[in-house]
Amino acid sequence: MRMVDLIEKKRDGHELTTEEIRFVIEGYTHDEIPDYQVSALAMAIFFRDMNDRERADLTLAMVESGETIDLSDIRGVKVDKHSTGGVGDTTTLVLAPLVAAAGIPVAKMSGRGLGHTGGTLDKLEAIPGFHIELSREEFASLVNESLIAVIGQSGNLTPADKKLYALRDVTATVESIPLIASSIMSKKIASGADAIVLDVKTGAGAFMKDEEDARRLASAMVAIGNQVGRNTMAVISDMSQPLGYAIGNSLEVQEAIDTLRGEGPADLLELCLALGSQMVFLGGGAASLEEAEELLKELLTNGKALEKFKEFIRNQGGNPAVVDDPSLLPQAPYRIELPARQNGFVSQMIADEIGTAAMVLGAGRATKESVIDLSVGLMLNKKVGDSVKVGESLVTIHANQEDVADVMERLYAAIEISAQAETPLLVRGVVTGVEGSKA
Amino acid sequence: MRMVDLIEKKRDGHELTTEEIRFVIEGYTHDEIPDYQVSALAMAIFFRDMNDRERADLTLAMVESGETIDLSDIRGVKVDKHSTGGVGDTTTLVLAPLVAAAGIPVAKMSGRGLGHTGGTLDKLEAIPGFHIELSREEFASLVNESLIAVIGQSGNLTPADKKLYALRDVTATVESIPLIASSIMSKKIASGADAIVLDVKTGAGAFMKDEEDARRLASAMVAIGNQVGRNTMAVISDMSQPLGYAIGNSLEVQEAIDTLRGEGPADLLELCLALGSQMVFLGGGAASLEEAEELLKELLTNGKALEKFKEFIRNQGGNPAVVDDPSLLPQAPYRIELPARQNGFVSQMIADEIGTAAMVLGAGRATKESVIDLSVGLMLNKKVGDSVKVGESLVTIHANQEDVADVMERLYAAIEISAQAETPLLVRGVVTGVEGSKA
Repeated sequence: MRMVDLIEKKRDGHELTTEEIRFVIEGYTHDEIPDYQVSALAMAIFFRDMNDRERADLTLAMVESGETIDLSDIRGVKVDKHSTGGVGDTTTLVLAPLVAAAGIPVAKMSGRGLGHTGGTLDKLEAIPGFHIELSREEFASLVNESLIAVIGQSGNLTPADKKLYALRDVTATVESIPLIASSIMSKKIASGADAIVLDVKTGAGAFMKDEEDARRLASAMVAIGNQVGRNTMAVISDMSQPLGYAIGNSLEVQEAIDTLRGEGPADLLELCLALGSQMVFLGGGAASLEEAEELLKELLTNGKALEKFKEFIRNQGGNPAVVDDPSLLPQAPYRIELPARQNGFVSQMIADEIGTAAMVLGAGRATKESVIDLSVGLMLNKKVGDSVKVGESLVTIHANQEDVADVMERLYAAIEISAQAETPLLVRGVVTGVEGSKA
Repeated sequence: MRMVDLIEKKRDGHELTTEEIRFVIEGYTHDEIPDYQVSALAMAIFFRDMNDRERADLTLAMVESGETIDLSDIRGVKVDKHSTGGVGDTTTLVLAPLVAAAGIPVAKMSGRGLGHTGGTLDKLEAIPGFHIELSREEFASLVNESLIAVIGQSGNLTPADKKLYALRDVTATVESIPLIASSIMSKKIASGADAIVLDVKTGAGAFMKDEEDARRLASAMVAIGNQVGRNTMAVISDMSQPLGYAIGNSLEVQEAIDTLRGEGPADLLELCLALGSQMVFLGGGAASLEEAEELLKELLTNGKALEKFKEFIRNQGGNPAVVDDPSLLPQAPYRIELPARQNGFVSQMIADEIGTAAMVLGAGRATKESVIDLSVGLMLNKKVGDSVKVGESLVTIHANQEDVADVMERLYAAIEISAQAETPLLVRGVVTGVEGSKA
């Protein structure tokens, strides 16, 4: 088999066989196929696409390129949730205890990563005493006993994906549905998930700016999951403005607590119920999505979700008192209001620009070496569609310094006030089968 | 400027500016842009094409990547001819003295190369005593005095093209009209041509199997030439069967002599007149293509073309007696006939397979290290459309060994005899302007 022939085959619109896809991924992982051939193939895939079978084969080939995590010592269906990334996305902090309270095991492996705010691990570390340094055995027994535990990612998972992603990033081949879908799905599958729930974001703050692209990506991933024996569902959700009110690590923990108490922002709650229902349904905790949603609502009302969060914190060395006294979380020394400069309705809060403002404050990492300040961040006081009067605060800036002029300028640039505005629809679609995918 | 942005720009169907194209080629030449980005760009160009302005810019950027040859010490318009390569293509050996006899300077730089038979240099070396080791000054003064000289290629011309071609060869990005056209044209322009005549072959023995592709390539090259101030014309010619009868170095010299005497194969003569007319017209030796053709016919009839060939041979140390006594050329010890095995008409003589048979005999180089036997080759006794009877010789094999069973098998496989056959049209089109090119 010659790589040049496979590039030509894909270039000319033919499908690659399972063996051919394995040849490419194995050869690339072991440095036997050079970058320049793989980038040409990636560009050919960008133009010619891959069918469902090829996408599934590519996903599995990347899974097989490295270590995989075996969660078979944990009882039950391990359902993993993945978000394509947004701003102020507190869903994981809410969903983990909520779904565990519904009887579904939550064996969460999380990373730190780069971005507007920290990863789930960073956010949890805002809770005094909380630690994620668990042995593999402690992790499994915690999930078996309490149905919930979080651990840092380890192991050399999907090295082919890491290598391919780095190459795509510098060769303008990132924006390809089959390549994005197989990249995400390979990581989830290598992490040991039995079932997968996906939150595909769309809008200014999302990787997929265009809703139709988000829908295609969601369908592609659901099709891959189902082809490789992992029940998969997806929600397509709006990320034109940040989710909820809080953007920042400590602030998001507090918002998660509010939500678990049934007092959180309406949009965050809505999305958590949509994603949580799919997780409970795929985990076998309910016979339908509707039944699952009813169950989750009950757990938020009767205090059991909040109770599970306390148990989770206690299990991993944290101080559960933060749940009742959020002032125990790191607090920023300065709170500065951003007053509206005109009357009207908030018509736009460009999510990624607001996220960047939070990162500039210190809430997220610009590079791997950056140090996060867990206390800082933004609390939105208005969301798109809200009316506002001159002087009213649009955002409360939680800062570790008094001078936040540049952050204020960024926020003013990202927030538009108009004579009229519409509240954007949050849940744009739900993909529960492969019907929307490419044949 | 970032290479990844330029790849994305082309990927999304936008045109690259002159500066952007220069940035790519300069960066690639100096190893500042890696192969993996250039192969991704080449694949994007394969799918998105380039407009005439981009193609001209790419050509000039490749010319500027290395040395260029200055022919300004040679008087007159230096017209260069380039063929995209075929089997038994003796046109250069005929055209060089013919066009020089018409008063147009022929300052030919030739290579050896790989292929079915040798390059023009190899063929000329079949003439006893002929040498191409001229100093740059000898070369110029020979052309100024006799209007004709041939020298070996030297200098580091178009290194960007060499590097890019090697990359395209292993990344399935060879078959792209803008990349092929700019590659050919950059070499011609760097070699100092003032005007360029192109022989674009089509059919089984050609790089461009499909006539429509050949036409697109011809138009693309003519457009580039005219954009960069080099008058350019092209002939699209059939290469489904070999040109003329001779395939082999010594044999082709003999056939060129026959043609210069007015006794050559009709197809070779026709093509030489078509290409030669364009060379004479672009060189300013005639007011129209028709007038140029009349002039060339006269030179073939009155012996002046043959006389010029003798002068050319004498000037470069060769024995001009070969013109009148071809037995002075290297002769193969064995002549073996290939008898027809059925009655009918020759309906196919697959050019590239016949060329390969000649190479197997030793007439061409399979690798750079191969040693050519100048004496061996094939003389076709029949061409497509000719009638044939069982036992009649289809081909005379000039070999340096008695056992040529494998060559005979190759020839039988390449030659088809049917109940009826049509003589293929040789000159398929002439491109004299940019009218057929992509806007």
